Amino acid sequence: MKIKVTVQLKPAILDPQGKAVEQGLQTLGFNARHVRIGRAIEFDVEAPTPEAARAEAQKMCEALLVNPIMEKAIIEVLS
Amino acid sequence: MKIKVTVQLKPAILDPQGKAVEQGLQTLGFNARHVRIGRAIEFDVEAPTPEAARAEAQKMCEALLVNPIMEKAIIEVLS
Repeated sequence: MKIKVTVQLKPAILDPQGKAVEQGLQTLGFNARHVRIGRAIEFDVEAPTPEAARAEAQKMCEALLVNPIMEKAIIEVLS
Repeated sequence: MKIKVTVQLKPAILDPQGKAVEQGLQTLGFNARHVRIGRAIEFDVEAPTPEAARAEAQKMCEALLVNPIMEKAIIEVLS
């Protein structure tokens, strides 16, 4: 099954990359605000059910993909 | 409105960061395959309708957020 994990810095943590992009967009005349840039991690995992795939992805987040001090993750089972 | 742009390298382009994470996950005993790591860009934009917000985000992708040579983008209007 295809999994997508979106990892973003927690709201309280400054995101300098997002700030830089926000300034860039505003310089170009766009009205973007509150820009945050995280990681979009996509992968395939073998699992019998979507629930099992989500549980496996959760374990991967805890073991390697996410820094729980500074980041939060959203797991989506795409198919 | 809240917009989420997911930017991934095109399938034909090697993703060394994804490969490294894939090896890391497999070393830890997970069965993840085809790991790809892209950017998850979230921001707020003022627009009267979701369609207008999506069009504005598309323009931002073309102007700054995405390298069309190597990357593809998926735009989602979250709210």
